Amino acid sequence: MHYSPNEIVIFFLSISLLLFFARVIGETMQYIKQPIVIGEIIAGIVLGPTIFGSIFPAMFNELFNSSQIAMTALEGIIILGVVMLLLVSGLEIDLSLVVRQGKAAMLVSSAGILFPFTIGFFIAYCFPEWMGIKDINMRFVFALFVGISLSITSLPVVARTLMDLNIYKTKIGLIIITSAMFNDLVGWIVFSIILGIIGQNSHPIDLPTLIIVLFSFIMFMLLIGRKIINFLFPYIEKVTTSPGGVLNFIFVMGFLGAAFTEYIGIHAIFGAFIMGIAIGDTVHLKEEIREVIQQFVTNIFAPLFFVSIGLRVNFIDNFDLGIVSIFLFLAFVGKIVGCGLGAYWGGMSKNESLAVGFGMNSRGAMEIVLGTIAFQVGLIHEKVFVAIIIMALITSVVSAPMINFFLKRSRQLLTFLSLLKPENVFFTNSSSKQEVISQLCQTLANQYKLDSNKIFNEVMAREKLISTGLENHLAVPHAKIDVKDPLVAVAIHKNGIEFESLDGLPAKIIVLLITPKNDAELQLKLLAEISKQMNNIEKINKLVDSKDVNDFISKMKSLP
Amino acid sequence: MHYSPNEIVIFFLSISLLLFFARVIGETMQYIKQPIVIGEIIAGIVLGPTIFGSIFPAMFNELFNSSQIAMTALEGIIILGVVMLLLVSGLEIDLSLVVRQGKAAMLVSSAGILFPFTIGFFIAYCFPEWMGIKDINMRFVFALFVGISLSITSLPVVARTLMDLNIYKTKIGLIIITSAMFNDLVGWIVFSIILGIIGQNSHPIDLPTLIIVLFSFIMFMLLIGRKIINFLFPYIEKVTTSPGGVLNFIFVMGFLGAAFTEYIGIHAIFGAFIMGIAIGDTVHLKEEIREVIQQFVTNIFAPLFFVSIGLRVNFIDNFDLGIVSIFLFLAFVGKIVGCGLGAYWGGMSKNESLAVGFGMNSRGAMEIVLGTIAFQVGLIHEKVFVAIIIMALITSVVSAPMINFFLKRSRQLLTFLSLLKPENVFFTNSSSKQEVISQLCQTLANQYKLDSNKIFNEVMAREKLISTGLENHLAVPHAKIDVKDPLVAVAIHKNGIEFESLDGLPAKIIVLLITPKNDAELQLKLLAEISKQMNNIEKINKLVDSKDVNDFISKMKSLP
Repeated sequence: MHYSPNEIVIFFLSISLLLFFARVIGETMQYIKQPIVIGEIIAGIVLGPTIFGSIFPAMFNELFNSSQIAMTALEGIIILGVVMLLLVSGLEIDLSLVVRQGKAAMLVSSAGILFPFTIGFFIAYCFPEWMGIKDINMRFVFALFVGISLSITSLPVVARTLMDLNIYKTKIGLIIITSAMFNDLVGWIVFSIILGIIGQNSHPIDLPTLIIVLFSFIMFMLLIGRKIINFLFPYIEKVTTSPGGVLNFIFVMGFLGAAFTEYIGIHAIFGAFIMGIAIGDTVHLKEEIREVIQQFVTNIFAPLFFVSIGLRVNFIDNFDLGIVSIFLFLAFVGKIVGCGLGAYWGGMSKNESLAVGFGMNSRGAMEIVLGTIAFQVGLIHEKVFVAIIIMALITSVVSAPMINFFLKRSRQLLTFLSLLKPENVFFTNSSSKQEVISQLCQTLANQYKLDSNKIFNEVMAREKLISTGLENHLAVPHAKIDVKDPLVAVAIHKNGIEFESLDGLPAKIIVLLITPKNDAELQLKLLAEISKQMNNIEKINKLVDSKDVNDFISKMKSLP
Repeated sequence: MHYSPNEIVIFFLSISLLLFFARVIGETMQYIKQPIVIGEIIAGIVLGPTIFGSIFPAMFNELFNSSQIAMTALEGIIILGVVMLLLVSGLEIDLSLVVRQGKAAMLVSSAGILFPFTIGFFIAYCFPEWMGIKDINMRFVFALFVGISLSITSLPVVARTLMDLNIYKTKIGLIIITSAMFNDLVGWIVFSIILGIIGQNSHPIDLPTLIIVLFSFIMFMLLIGRKIINFLFPYIEKVTTSPGGVLNFIFVMGFLGAAFTEYIGIHAIFGAFIMGIAIGDTVHLKEEIREVIQQFVTNIFAPLFFVSIGLRVNFIDNFDLGIVSIFLFLAFVGKIVGCGLGAYWGGMSKNESLAVGFGMNSRGAMEIVLGTIAFQVGLIHEKVFVAIIIMALITSVVSAPMINFFLKRSRQLLTFLSLLKPENVFFTNSSSKQEVISQLCQTLANQYKLDSNKIFNEVMAREKLISTGLENHLAVPHAKIDVKDPLVAVAIHKNGIEFESLDGLPAKIIVLLITPKNDAELQLKLLAEISKQMNNIEKINKLVDSKDVNDFISKMKSLP
């Protein structure tokens, strides 16, 4: 227990190294648009026995094996880190959102748990040697674990991906997030029970009692505890120094929850997670306090956990292509079919359903926590551990580009703002409606190598049926022609030109909208969006007053 | 190294308990206007062998002694906590301020180090048994340590006290803060050298080399390293995710610094402290990042360190009245005489000098860190450790009220704004100068049981010499009479009355100022302050337009 100077040196040196490499490789991943956690895990593989340890074994042993005390302390900090990570993950779960998004999310997440769980459990139970079982007597528990490991979804990675794609607050984004939250909750409960089963030999509480205690704890915290916390919060804020008092309260509660679940024979992180949900739900928790916790935990403590994964095993020696392949295959099939079907039954299009499936497929941090614990309690051996980490990494990396691909195909990403390009916006002085439409057609024709006359004729034909001059100085001439993607061009006329508008005002902003021939729905959607984007005269006037094209576009994006 | 469930339970339970009690008792101290750190230390004494351990020894042993692994982890987190605390303390030191405040601060801090160091060293060397020396062969090192322990000042506690007293940005406040910073720097350097001497037996580097390496490190970091960090900072901010990248950089540098100084045979905290100074000096470090670190460290990690102090020894069994008394006596005499003389030679009044002396006397957190390390390396035994903790607590508690007392005596706290009471402010419609002065005198007379006629006569006598109508609608009739403290009353006249002002404008704000008879200086100071507070016509007009008395006072305080 006494720290010698040498042990303190190793302690700080190893922490610095882990943090530094986690950050550098994490930032590199960020740079190529991948979740930072992937870089943190790769950093661990680089610093661990796989690379650094096999090239410089003496240095590696000096740093990570020579001091029993320094390593015990590091392991303690890593346990603290992962408990804090789950506490923060819990804080992010919004129970009211789960209730509100109700039906669709329930379908997606139920199917997204049941289907992968069933195929995972079935394959692992019938062909346990395919999945690299460690102890054949543990067949049932192992199959349960495989089922759960396939049905987990990583809330933090999913949330990050949706934010990056700018669809966090859209309907499809909310459904994915809600399903992921529900998934996490169910997945962790079942995993806790598995841990309870494994721990049975060494633990005084029998399984039925354990399950009753566990459910009572969950129900108590999410129904009554949550209300008590919500009630106490303003009082705590009032009598304590801000933000220290609340910060302290959150960690004390989280650690007590951790101690409690660990005591009843379930991993500590589960208690922290449930406490996080109960605390995060209060409306009184200030954004800046959430921010302090979030920043500190995700940037200092969580990386120490993720980077430590690579220190545990040699990823090359323990790479088993068969086991990795079957885990990957089952992971992809299970989630994409399961969640995809759920979304499809919930009334989404085929492309949207696939986007949901790939969104829910990312296993990320949560899977890694689960795999690490299973490895530590001796449920799985090195090869399965490596397969699970690789599966978690690949499903997470694939997620964002695939959501992007299917949402693009389902036109969810085609918005007026995303179609607006500076080269297709210009100021004009033309004196007639015909002339400005001709300029707009010419612009698009030049840009995309199209036949200007053909577009012009189509637009004018539409214009003859009824004028596209709307209200508030806005006009939206449009046509469907033979293009693959929709196109827009914008002309700005400071004084306005007569456009036979509904309210008789001259048109100052003229938007030309070209959409693919056989997609009436897309045209309607974009027309509705354009008129909604410019639905008041004040905004139009501000837009018309733009200094230049870039100013116009930035106002377009920022004005309410 | 493997954590059993029971050890994880103990780990989280002990952390929760320590954090919880630290907070509750800390907030109680805060409530009675004492530094929170005092409550954290008391919480440790309550939870430690002194109280909890002696009443419930079995429970205490189960929690804090039964698990070797949990305690090693807790100790590791405490080491991490104190290193983080010194890193944050370093971030708070502003080198340019030390340079700017130059001469006065240098006098205060030099005298404030040399005097207590000399008496401490002398007494401890000549009468080591009085101070409870542990090993008489270590007489010289022990005397050095006593000298240093008496000459340290706690920057965080001092800063907090000055802010609470609202004098942080005044000249006297800046001098105290600057001296404290300089004090810390010198104190820690000398203490590092002491640690180097103690560690000589077990360490390969000999003392002269150690001192050279140490000074090279300090000089390099504070002169060149600081510039490199300042240069690199915007670059790091640009290429990394904000705020994670910078947060990570700060901790990696801090921990590397810690590993380095520990490696050369000096405690880890010193490297973190120097790194903190070098990093904190960059202009590019954003306030919100500083805030995240500050909040997390001072609310979660630092409390774990402070509360752990009480766990180390039994404060009742090891309380030795003789040792405690001599440490307390030398601490008070050393700092108050030393710093007080420095301030007095620097041109301050007697009362101001005493305020500076008591300000510099608070030992707080820094002394405790120093005492804990000395105890851990075996330089001092339990009784001296307890004496040092008690001395740190008492000097810190006494600091704020004593500064307050002497600054009040030196009139530093008597400002126009602090004298302004709502019951002495009124709106008037009176038609003559004489009438409004009479109203003002009556107000003060009623309020403080004075003779209204006497005041009126004094004021009018002064008024006859030359009118007190200043510029911009302001008039300040005044008199010195037989009162203990200065008094003010304010009349507001929306239309203004003729006051024979310098600029011919009618007086709209009439301030009556009464000061003690034999204090010409105070009268001049307050007159100057009043005219400075209302030196432009715009502000006067806004003040005259106040809705009511409270509005007037809040405008008085908030308008520039």
